[in-house]
Amino acid sequence: MANYFKDNEDLRFYVEHGIDWAPLVEEIEQGYRYATTGEGDGHKNLAEALTFYREMLETVGAFAADELAPQAARIDREGVRFEDGEVHFPPTLEKTFRALGRLELHGMSLPRELGGLNCPLILYFLNSELLARADVSVMSHHGFHGGIAMALLFFSLTEGSTQVDTQTRRIVSTRWEKEIAEIAAGKAWGCMDITEPDAGSDMAALRARGTLGDDGVWRVTGEKIFITSGHGKYHFVIARTEAAPQGTADDPLAGLKGLSMFLVPMWEDTPKGRRRLAFVDRVEEKLGHHGSATCSLRFEDTPAQLVGRRGEGFQQMLLLMNNARIGVAFEALGLCEAAWRLARDYAAGRRSMGKTIDRHEMIADALDEMETDIAGIRALAVTGGYWEELGQRLRTTLLFADGVVTAEEKAALERRMKSARRKARRLTPLAKYLASEKAVSIARMALQIHGGVGYTTEYGAEKLLRDALVMPIYEGTSQIQCLMAMKDTLTGTLSNPGRFVRRIARANWLAVSSRDPLEKRVARLSALSLSAQQFLLTRTAAHKLRHVPVTEWPATFKTDWDPKRDFALAMLHAERLTRLLCDEAIAEILLDQAQAHPSRAALLERHLERAEPRARCLHEEITGSGERLLTALGRMG
Amino acid sequence: MANYFKDNEDLRFYVEHGIDWAPLVEEIEQGYRYATTGEGDGHKNLAEALTFYREMLETVGAFAADELAPQAARIDREGVRFEDGEVHFPPTLEKTFRALGRLELHGMSLPRELGGLNCPLILYFLNSELLARADVSVMSHHGFHGGIAMALLFFSLTEGSTQVDTQTRRIVSTRWEKEIAEIAAGKAWGCMDITEPDAGSDMAALRARGTLGDDGVWRVTGEKIFITSGHGKYHFVIARTEAAPQGTADDPLAGLKGLSMFLVPMWEDTPKGRRRLAFVDRVEEKLGHHGSATCSLRFEDTPAQLVGRRGEGFQQMLLLMNNARIGVAFEALGLCEAAWRLARDYAAGRRSMGKTIDRHEMIADALDEMETDIAGIRALAVTGGYWEELGQRLRTTLLFADGVVTAEEKAALERRMKSARRKARRLTPLAKYLASEKAVSIARMALQIHGGVGYTTEYGAEKLLRDALVMPIYEGTSQIQCLMAMKDTLTGTLSNPGRFVRRIARANWLAVSSRDPLEKRVARLSALSLSAQQFLLTRTAAHKLRHVPVTEWPATFKTDWDPKRDFALAMLHAERLTRLLCDEAIAEILLDQAQAHPSRAALLERHLERAEPRARCLHEEITGSGERLLTALGRMG
Repeated sequence: MANYFKDNEDLRFYVEHGIDWAPLVEEIEQGYRYATTGEGDGHKNLAEALTFYREMLETVGAFAADELAPQAARIDREGVRFEDGEVHFPPTLEKTFRALGRLELHGMSLPRELGGLNCPLILYFLNSELLARADVSVMSHHGFHGGIAMALLFFSLTEGSTQVDTQTRRIVSTRWEKEIAEIAAGKAWGCMDITEPDAGSDMAALRARGTLGDDGVWRVTGEKIFITSGHGKYHFVIARTEAAPQGTADDPLAGLKGLSMFLVPMWEDTPKGRRRLAFVDRVEEKLGHHGSATCSLRFEDTPAQLVGRRGEGFQQMLLLMNNARIGVAFEALGLCEAAWRLARDYAAGRRSMGKTIDRHEMIADALDEMETDIAGIRALAVTGGYWEELGQRLRTTLLFADGVVTAEEKAALERRMKSARRKARRLTPLAKYLASEKAVSIARMALQIHGGVGYTTEYGAEKLLRDALVMPIYEGTSQIQCLMAMKDTLTGTLSNPGRFVRRIARANWLAVSSRDPLEKRVARLSALSLSAQQFLLTRTAAHKLRHVPVTEWPATFKTDWDPKRDFALAMLHAERLTRLLCDEAIAEILLDQAQAHPSRAALLERHLERAEPRARCLHEEITGSGERLLTALGRMG
Repeated sequence: MANYFKDNEDLRFYVEHGIDWAPLVEEIEQGYRYATTGEGDGHKNLAEALTFYREMLETVGAFAADELAPQAARIDREGVRFEDGEVHFPPTLEKTFRALGRLELHGMSLPRELGGLNCPLILYFLNSELLARADVSVMSHHGFHGGIAMALLFFSLTEGSTQVDTQTRRIVSTRWEKEIAEIAAGKAWGCMDITEPDAGSDMAALRARGTLGDDGVWRVTGEKIFITSGHGKYHFVIARTEAAPQGTADDPLAGLKGLSMFLVPMWEDTPKGRRRLAFVDRVEEKLGHHGSATCSLRFEDTPAQLVGRRGEGFQQMLLLMNNARIGVAFEALGLCEAAWRLARDYAAGRRSMGKTIDRHEMIADALDEMETDIAGIRALAVTGGYWEELGQRLRTTLLFADGVVTAEEKAALERRMKSARRKARRLTPLAKYLASEKAVSIARMALQIHGGVGYTTEYGAEKLLRDALVMPIYEGTSQIQCLMAMKDTLTGTLSNPGRFVRRIARANWLAVSSRDPLEKRVARLSALSLSAQQFLLTRTAAHKLRHVPVTEWPATFKTDWDPKRDFALAMLHAERLTRLLCDEAIAEILLDQAQAHPSRAALLERHLERAEPRARCLHEEITGSGERLLTALGRMG
C-alpha cells in the first residue's frame, strides 16, 4: 500500500507546520459560521478542517500510488483518438476520470452550496502534486475541471452576477450555476483558449474576433491552437473586440487593450445528441503527454457570453493564468518527485565496481542536488500558491464587506489582500519557471542515471522527460516568466526606491552582524540579488541615471523613455536575474521555517551550499557581460 | 543546392588553416612515395591531397544536405523491423546505405591496396559531422563499416599478422583481408560488443567467457546488450578468459585483467544461405535513434578468433574506444549544428511583439551561446581527433621502422608519437563529454525556442533531442568520461609534479605580464584550473600531503593508499573539474588559432566571456563544497 502523501516528509512538513492555515481557513469557512448556520455542514474549527484535509491527502496519495501510477505507461502508449471531429479517450483514461469523480475531486474547492467540498485551493494544488507524480496527463486534464469551475465562480463574483446572503455568507445564485454543477459532477470540463497560429507569447497579436450582433448576442470567430484538453464543453476564449487605439502602430503591446473574455460552449446537448457550435480541427502529435488532447479549434460565429466588461480580457486572463501557472508548478513538482525517486531507487539497486551506484560520489551528488532542488521548488510553489489563494479569498470577502465590517476593518482587509497579492505576484513566475525547468533537468538526469536502460521505453525515465518538456512552454514559456519576474522586480524598485535602499541596507547589515549564521548567509545571498538589480537599473538608461541619486530615479526614468534601448540589458539577463531571485526567495522561505523549526536548518544549509557559488556566478555574468551582444543587436544607447 | 560543408565557415577554417595537415599526410602518404612507386596511385604532394579531401567534403556535404536530411524524419518514423531473429532495414535506409557505398565512403580511410581511398581518419570524422547533421542514426551505422575495417587492420598490424613491403610501404598481406574487403565493398559491417546486463560502465564485472577447446579453437559464450548495429556480421567481443588473480576479491577492478578480445563472425554464408553462429535475441525500443538497431546478442560456443594476446582485451578495447569516443563527439557536433541552425532559422522567421524573435535579447543570447559552444566543441573534437590519428599513424610507422630509419630518427618518432598520444588522451574524454552533453542541452534549447510547435512531432526539434539523449550514455557515459579526465589529469600531475609547478608558475606569470590581453585571460583561466587541481590533490589524502612540498607528493602519495577515501573528493567533483578542463582546453586551442589568424580572436573572446564566470564558479564549488556529502557517504578520512 504505497502512499504518495505519507511517503513524502517534505510535503507533510507543509501540511503540519509550513502552511499558516489559520487565517486562510478562517476566510474559507467564514469564521466557521457554516457549522452553526444554514445546513450546518461546515467544519467546526481549524483542527476539524485539518483532519479532513489530511484524510483527503491520504486518500489521493493512496489513489495516485496504487491506482494511477500503475496505469501511467499504458496511458502513454494508448494516447487519445481523434475521429470525425471528436476526441475519444481510451478506456483506461475513462476509468481513471470516473474514479477521480467518485473521490469528489473535480469540485473539491467549490463552495458546498455549489456541490463542492469547500476545500482550500492550496489543498487542490497539493493533491495535484500527488496526481502528477503518478501521471501528468491525468493531473492536467483533471485540472481543467475544478479549475474552470472555480474560475466561472470567480469571474461571476467579480462582475457582480453572484448573490450572496450576507447573514449566512452562502451563495444564493450565480451566473454559471448550471455549468459549474455539470463540471463538479464530472460531466463536463473547460479550458482557456488564448494561443493562435501567429500569436503565442505575443498576445497583442491575437486575431480571433468577438462581435456584438444586432440581436444583442456576442459571437466569436477565429482559430485557437495548442489548447490542452480543448475537446471540453466550456471555453474561456480571448478575442479581439476593439481595434487598437489610433497612433499606436509602433507600440507592440497596444493590441492588448482591445481584448475581451468570453465563455463559449462548444456544443449544445439536444435530444438528438450533440449540436456543434465550434469545432476541433485536429489533435497534435506530441513528444509526450499522450494522455492529454492538444487541440486546434475553430470558432465560426459561435454564440458567446461576454465575461465582465469588454476590453478587459487581458487583465482577466492574467487572473486565470496565475492559478494556471501555480498549477503547472505543482505538476512539475510531482514529476520531479517521480523522477528523483525513480533514479534513487534504481541507483540503490544497481551495483557497479563493488557497490551500488548511489554510493558513487557523482551519482550521490546528483541525487542530493535533485532532492534539494525539489524541496526548493516546493517552498516556492506552496508559498506562492498560499498567498495567491489568500489574496483571492480576501478579495472575495471584500466584495461583500460593505455594511458587514467597519471601515477600519475593511481597510485592514485591503492591506492584507494587497500584501498577499504582492507576495503571490513575486513568487508565481519564479515557481512556474524553476519547477518546469527543473522538471526537464531532473528527468534528464534520472534518465542518465539509468544508463542504457534509461534510453529504452521500458523503465519509465524517458517517459518522464518527454512529459516534462512541455512544462517550460505552456502557460507562458520560461522566457516569459523570466521577463515578468524581471520587470516586476525592477519596476517595483523604481516605484519605491526608498524601500529598495532600505532593503539593501538591511541585507548588508544582517550579512555582517546577524548572530544567526544562516541568517547571515541568506542576507549575503539577498545582497547579491539586490546588487544585481541595482546594477541593471543603473545601467538601464545609464545616460539618464548616472549621477542621479536613487531617490530621484522614478522621475528621471520616465523622461525620454525608450523601452527598446533602455531595458535591453535587463531583458538580456532576465533569466539570470530570475535564477538569482529564485535562490533568494527559497532561502528566505527556508530561513523562516528554520527559525521556527530547527529541523529545517539542514535543508537550508543544503540549499545555500549550492545557491551561493551559483549566485556569485550569476551576479558576475549580469554585471560583467552582455554589451557585445547588445551592440550586435543595436541596443546600446 | 545546400551543402553542409560549404555553408559551415568554422568547419572550413579547420580544413584550410586549423589542421596541421603536412605531418599527418606525410605519414599517410609515406612521404608521397606511392605516387612514384608501385601503382603510382598516391597523391603527388600535400596540395593535391588537400584538393582531393576538399572535393570529398563537398561531395559528402551535398549528399548530406540534399539526399540524407530530407529522409531523416521518415527514417525516424519507419524505424527498423525485427523478425525471426533477423533485423531488417526499411527501403529508405537500404537506399541510403547503397548511396554511401557508391560514394566509396565505407572504406575511405583504408589503404588503397585494401580497396580504400587512403584518406585521413580526421577526414572521415569531418564527414561524420556532415552526415550526423543530417541524421545521426545513419551516421552511426555508417561508422560501423570503415571504423571496424580500420580496427581489423590496426589490430593485425599490432599483433604482427600483417606483412608490409619495406620498399614500397605497401601491405602485402593482412590477417583479416577478406573481412576488410567485404566491409569496404559495403557488403558487411561490424561492431564492438562490451556491455552485458550486469556490466555497463563496470567492465570488470563482464561475464561472457572465451574458452580454448582441445581442437585449438576459441569459443565464446555469453550475452551482450545495447549493441548498436549489432545485427552485423563481424563482432569484436570482449570475453573473460582468465580468472581474477588470487587475493583480489576486494579490488573491484581486478576483473579487468582477465579479459580478451575476439573477432566473432555471427554467421557463415553457405550456398544454402546464412548459417547462424550467434543470435540476435531482441532489438530495443528506444526513445530515439530509430534508424539504428540496438541489439541483445547471444553467443553459444560460437567459434571466435583471438585478437592479439589473451588477457589484453581491456587495453585493446581502450584503443578501439578512443576512436569511438571521438566518433561520438563528431556525431554530437553534427547534431548540435543541426539543432542550432534549426532554432536560428525558426527564430529568424517567427515574429513576436513587433520583431522576429531572434532579435529578442534572451533568444539572441541563447543562439549566440549555442554557436560559441559548437565552435568550442569543434576545437576539442578536431584537435583531439587529429592527435589521436597522428599518434596511431606514427605508431604504425614505428612498427616497421627497424632497419628503415636510424636509431636517432626512431627515437624522434617515438617522442612525437608519445606527445601526440598524450594530447589525444587529454582531449578525447573532454570532447566526448562536452559534445554529447551539449547535444542534449542545445537540442533542448532548440525545442524551447520553437515554443509549442517544438513539442509537436512536425518541426524536427523533438527528434533531435530524442536522438541526442543517448550520446552521453553510449561509448562510456559522461560520468565515466569525467572520471577518466579527472584521474588522468591528477595522476599525470602526481607523476610529474615538477612540470605541474612550472605550469602554475607560467600561468601566473602570463596572467599578469603577457602583452596579449587574450593570452592573459587564457592564462587566468588556466590558473583557475590548475588551482582546482592543486586543491583536489592537496585535499586528496590531506592527512598525508599536508606540510609536504609538492615535489615529494608522488612518494608520499603512494604510501598507505586507500582509493575509496583518498580520491573521494576528486571523484565527487570530477564533472566540475572536467567542465573546467574543457573550457581551458578550448581557450588554449582558440588562442593558438587567434595568434596565427587574427580573425579567430573574436571567437576566443566569445568563449572567454562565457567561460570566465563559469570557471570561477566551478573553482569555488570544487574548493568550497562537498564535505557534507562525503561525510554522509562515509568517505572523509
